Amino acid sequence: MIRVALDAMGGDKGVHEVVCGAAMLSVSPRPVQVLLVGDPDAINGVLVDQKYDPRWIQIVPASGTVSMGDNPRQALLKNPNCSINVAARLVRDGQADALVSAGHTGATILAAADCFQRLPGIRRTALAAVYPTEQRHGPKGDPFALMLDVGATVGSTAEDLVAFGVMGSAYAKIISDNPSPRVALLSNGTEPNKGTPSIVAAHERLTQLSSVNFVGNVEGLDIPKGTVDVIVCDGFLGNVVLKMLEGVSEVFSDLAADAYARKFLWRLGLTMLSQGLRQLKSMTDWKQYGGAPVLGFDHVVIKAHGRSNARAIRNAIKVAAKAVDRDLCEQIRVGMAGGST
Amino acid sequence: MIRVALDAMGGDKGVHEVVCGAAMLSVSPRPVQVLLVGDPDAINGVLVDQKYDPRWIQIVPASGTVSMGDNPRQALLKNPNCSINVAARLVRDGQADALVSAGHTGATILAAADCFQRLPGIRRTALAAVYPTEQRHGPKGDPFALMLDVGATVGSTAEDLVAFGVMGSAYAKIISDNPSPRVALLSNGTEPNKGTPSIVAAHERLTQLSSVNFVGNVEGLDIPKGTVDVIVCDGFLGNVVLKMLEGVSEVFSDLAADAYARKFLWRLGLTMLSQGLRQLKSMTDWKQYGGAPVLGFDHVVIKAHGRSNARAIRNAIKVAAKAVDRDLCEQIRVGMAGGST
Repeated sequence: MIRVALDAMGGDKGVHEVVCGAAMLSVSPRPVQVLLVGDPDAINGVLVDQKYDPRWIQIVPASGTVSMGDNPRQALLKNPNCSINVAARLVRDGQADALVSAGHTGATILAAADCFQRLPGIRRTALAAVYPTEQRHGPKGDPFALMLDVGATVGSTAEDLVAFGVMGSAYAKIISDNPSPRVALLSNGTEPNKGTPSIVAAHERLTQLSSVNFVGNVEGLDIPKGTVDVIVCDGFLGNVVLKMLEGVSEVFSDLAADAYARKFLWRLGLTMLSQGLRQLKSMTDWKQYGGAPVLGFDHVVIKAHGRSNARAIRNAIKVAAKAVDRDLCEQIRVGMAGGST
Repeated sequence: MIRVALDAMGGDKGVHEVVCGAAMLSVSPRPVQVLLVGDPDAINGVLVDQKYDPRWIQIVPASGTVSMGDNPRQALLKNPNCSINVAARLVRDGQADALVSAGHTGATILAAADCFQRLPGIRRTALAAVYPTEQRHGPKGDPFALMLDVGATVGSTAEDLVAFGVMGSAYAKIISDNPSPRVALLSNGTEPNKGTPSIVAAHERLTQLSSVNFVGNVEGLDIPKGTVDVIVCDGFLGNVVLKMLEGVSEVFSDLAADAYARKFLWRLGLTMLSQGLRQLKSMTDWKQYGGAPVLGFDHVVIKAHGRSNARAIRNAIKVAAKAVDRDLCEQIRVGMAGGST
């Protein structure tokens, strides 16, 4: 039985949405054992009004949480029994199999780094983002692609980029049931000699690596199109690109709202288009895809978006359980050793 | 009188659109003297069917052009009398004041580098892109911002980024009549310590530079929003970002076309919204803003988009003439010396 340690106190919307996500999953056809880590009173205060199956939910007490404004390193040191620390230790000590948090991203990664080991050959872990694209991916026709690293760490080496490729490929295989995800490096041209020295060197090594279906370089144009399944880049570039996608989404929402408010004819047109616009909105609103994996540790870590609602939390727990079930960490280990995963 | 040397043979649409752009401007209320450089037969073949004022158009013969598939360095060496080489020499020799081309970007920059000097303190020239944003800019409420470098050159130093800030500021002042354009560095966080070592060092220097209204770092989110007037970044990042904007624009066009084709109700809705969609289209279709300056040379160089139509070419010539009239190169020189431009 797979058990997921969930930081119940993280997330912009507070304990309510997180606990509701766990409750929702407990009464679904395929529940997952969830350890809700946080203030028992607050958790019970939410659960009392929810439909849930108590056999699938266990409360583990913790005191306090890391707030968005906190310095994560200082906050974790100051409060060893805050919810993310306790949740990470549950996984380290074998009482849970995966860590899920909608809280402070930096604190989640630091707590994981304190408790877990990096897999062999992984110098730097990566935060991967799942984002919607025009083209579909894998045999299930998933409407989203994977990009990593988006964790804002600067200065990836060629080795780091190769490892990101291996990790992204392993994750896409498991989550999208895609036997051979197409992996590409993000660069300023498709030719092998385009990009920074790290990118050029990573290109050469990925070409020789049998465990990854490396298809070469892609350009900025290919990000929204979704030409490939996994895009590999430095964390600085990934951060700028991901925030820009978020910005584009917000601008389009603003413009649609403006059109709706301004003219009756436009309002009528928007109403007629509502079904099509929902599709567009789901494409631009990448926030709905709650779970972003932190890859490279010897345990599964899923960072749900801070703005996750109950449904997104439920999805993040399901994704974590699936990654454990399919042995993500072992797949990455094999891939790093050069074998076919 | 300002004279613009225009490569008549460049551009994806061939000689027709380029020559029509010059013809269109010659009969406008404020014409500019244009030297059309290229095959006289081809140029005259277009002019014969156009309304134009021959007093404002002069044909300068050249043989051949650099094609998109050519290696630009080899093509320029092989054919010293190709249109872009002849046009650049006209400017070098004082027969024209500015160079405009819709042809091969690399060839345009190389021909300029062969004929012109870099301004004092400029180690690397920059290609700047004008792109549409949600927010308006300057006293005229321009709907576009400036980003540089987007020229795909890798590895800008802190000095390069500072120079890009000075050059972008000078250009925005002149083109948008904006007395104090807000200039920012693109990074992975707003704090001064965020980003690559070059960005952190450039941040410190720009803060101390009186000639630039430096407002700090912006993030990916701020690119489509248009929070600032001039965004400074490394050419690699700028290239990825700009191509991604182009990709987003294409994806939205595809989705709209798909909605139009699929359902009568959606078609009706789109028709009702057509006026609003034109606004949206003009926002995402950055290609309509024909002229991108190449900054850092001692002469004005404007690179029009390869897909420019006659109107975009006309605008690029006007922009070049305005930059000469307001003495762009001198403004950059003063800005680099630390003075207020």
